[in-house]
Amino acid sequence: MSSPSPAGSSGPVVGMIGAGQLARMTQQAAIALGVELRVLAGSRDESAARVVADVRLGDHRSLSDLRDFAKGCDALTFDHEHVPTEHIRALAADGSAVHPGAEALVHAQDKAVMRERLTAIGAPCPAWRRVETAADVEGFAAEHGWPVVLKAVRGGYDGRGVWICRSAGDAAGVLASGVPLLAEAFVPFERELAVLVARSPHGQGVSYPVVETVQRDGICVEVLAPAPGLDPERAAAAQGLALKIATELGVTGLLAVEMFETSGGFVVNELAMRPHNSGHWTIEGARTSQFEQHLRAVLDLPLGAPVMTAPVVVMANLLGGEDPDVFSRYEHVMAHDPGIKVHFYGKEVRPGRKIGHVTALGTDLEEVRARARHAAVYLTDGVYT
Amino acid sequence: MSSPSPAGSSGPVVGMIGAGQLARMTQQAAIALGVELRVLAGSRDESAARVVADVRLGDHRSLSDLRDFAKGCDALTFDHEHVPTEHIRALAADGSAVHPGAEALVHAQDKAVMRERLTAIGAPCPAWRRVETAADVEGFAAEHGWPVVLKAVRGGYDGRGVWICRSAGDAAGVLASGVPLLAEAFVPFERELAVLVARSPHGQGVSYPVVETVQRDGICVEVLAPAPGLDPERAAAAQGLALKIATELGVTGLLAVEMFETSGGFVVNELAMRPHNSGHWTIEGARTSQFEQHLRAVLDLPLGAPVMTAPVVVMANLLGGEDPDVFSRYEHVMAHDPGIKVHFYGKEVRPGRKIGHVTALGTDLEEVRARARHAAVYLTDGVYT
Repeated sequence: MSSPSPAGSSGPVVGMIGAGQLARMTQQAAIALGVELRVLAGSRDESAARVVADVRLGDHRSLSDLRDFAKGCDALTFDHEHVPTEHIRALAADGSAVHPGAEALVHAQDKAVMRERLTAIGAPCPAWRRVETAADVEGFAAEHGWPVVLKAVRGGYDGRGVWICRSAGDAAGVLASGVPLLAEAFVPFERELAVLVARSPHGQGVSYPVVETVQRDGICVEVLAPAPGLDPERAAAAQGLALKIATELGVTGLLAVEMFETSGGFVVNELAMRPHNSGHWTIEGARTSQFEQHLRAVLDLPLGAPVMTAPVVVMANLLGGEDPDVFSRYEHVMAHDPGIKVHFYGKEVRPGRKIGHVTALGTDLEEVRARARHAAVYLTDGVYT
Repeated sequence: MSSPSPAGSSGPVVGMIGAGQLARMTQQAAIALGVELRVLAGSRDESAARVVADVRLGDHRSLSDLRDFAKGCDALTFDHEHVPTEHIRALAADGSAVHPGAEALVHAQDKAVMRERLTAIGAPCPAWRRVETAADVEGFAAEHGWPVVLKAVRGGYDGRGVWICRSAGDAAGVLASGVPLLAEAFVPFERELAVLVARSPHGQGVSYPVVETVQRDGICVEVLAPAPGLDPERAAAAQGLALKIATELGVTGLLAVEMFETSGGFVVNELAMRPHNSGHWTIEGARTSQFEQHLRAVLDLPLGAPVMTAPVVVMANLLGGEDPDVFSRYEHVMAHDPGIKVHFYGKEVRPGRKIGHVTALGTDLEEVRARARHAAVYLTDGVYT
């Protein structure tokens, strides 16, 4: 960006489109840096709108709302991937510093574009093909076998928009929805890993340690940092791959690369270009949190040290249970473990919804993991494990 | 407090009277805990008012403004000590949970009350006496020698309201101001230490490690955690003394005890009952920051672990220099030291004003201290040290 340095008491203004928990946690980093965070929210009840002074109400699908929002921002960035790519191009054409830019972000918005590009740069992908008809899917299956993974080209997240089809019958139901689809070969993976990197407009890049993400029903429930037992050469290769993708795609800001670890190496699963659930552990667990890192990157400031602050860090998501009153359970969790770090997102509790997370830090993986699990299970369900 | 647990998405509401940097940094902790922080500000430009969604404008000296502010708060607490004691009593009589309460807070508001009480509980104090006339001061000096330290009984902070008088002539000028005064014997101290403790309404108490505070012109410029070379038994005694004071005075929330270390032990200098400059290092340097700890204490939640996250932590204050454009210097500081943590308060830069702080963490005191100093000097004055 040209100049993030207005005179006087006011820091640079970063406008974040979307007001979910990622924007909410970005506010904690913005407060320290003296960055004025502005959020575009659908309502004042949204997670970040509850904790930010400069809330603008509007629709992220409306170019007019986006243009109003952008006025006076030194940089624009995103809490989610749902802003239409053409609107991002229009904002950049207006002169806004948008990070990541449309040409990068489209790879996190459109899985077909992502697969094409990753294949072109030699990043390991599963076999894949655009499919429109039952014959397309059956042809793909004839080549690569069942199950076939069908993915919505746009709009999926947290397991939504992904269907593992074991037969032509399974696929028929998905095809009937009419959404543009991609077929991917099912990857027999050993575990899921994620690499979070940041890249600034100057081209500086940093990588956090590779983490293991534990999923349940397509939703991340636990992150183990660093990925236990990962061969150091493999870890370095995964970091190198993520940094290469960031560079080749021209990412500015954060890039999370979700990977499958297989017997032979890695396969890239998904990309996200924003703070990511797999990086929440960095708030306490790294010298520079992913939220601070993202702000530094989008303001083209030198990036912060991504080193860990403890040998082992475990983050567990809090998924809404049946009882909305999570605060009544603080007393037990905090008394049981004075070192546990609790993060609530100020969101209405609904079953299965991500309403917060907890982080435990220490030296022994099993002990740290048990602490994180205990707190997460008790906070969400009131069950003592 | 009776119940900090409203149902649904909203966490407990904590009302903080005052909107300076302490309230600003409390917001970072409130965001994580899902606590809704409300601040009473004099204007929307104040440090915390720039980063909080629920800002109420009003005067902390007006009982009517305070009563309006208190409505709907689960707990009330303070960013400063300037709320009249009688107003705090009135709020408590209305049914508000005020932490610390008036009977405790008065010891941080009125130095004569503080000295009487500390003397009564056997806490080490310098010789002291209330003084009104030149004859009073000369009588005190005849007993304890010059210099005599005159202190305003109420309203002093950051070296204001403290006069070191080397003669009756010096004292005459101070007496002429007409403010109620206390005389204290000058303590030939070796260094200044501070102990930060927290106490909850339940009576749980925790102590952070003893730190050394380095002052210049009565303003804290640097904090070294833990206090270098402090004898472990002395450190434990200082922590015990601070916890005893918290208990005896009925403090709820944080208590900072500023001490002089002398050849023979400690002498208590000042008390503060709120997050304190000597505890800013805890944001990154302790498992539980002082801001989170204060929120937990005033909500009567179990207190968090006060353990350090690194062997050595140094905090250096950023005092305003001549150039208001501090942001233009981020680039050098962040590139020079990717691990330095910068905190800006969003305050207009004025010479000598506390506008932020930096924190460095590591293992070697001299190296960590040099890093903190380099960043602080460069950010405030643009000078490369």
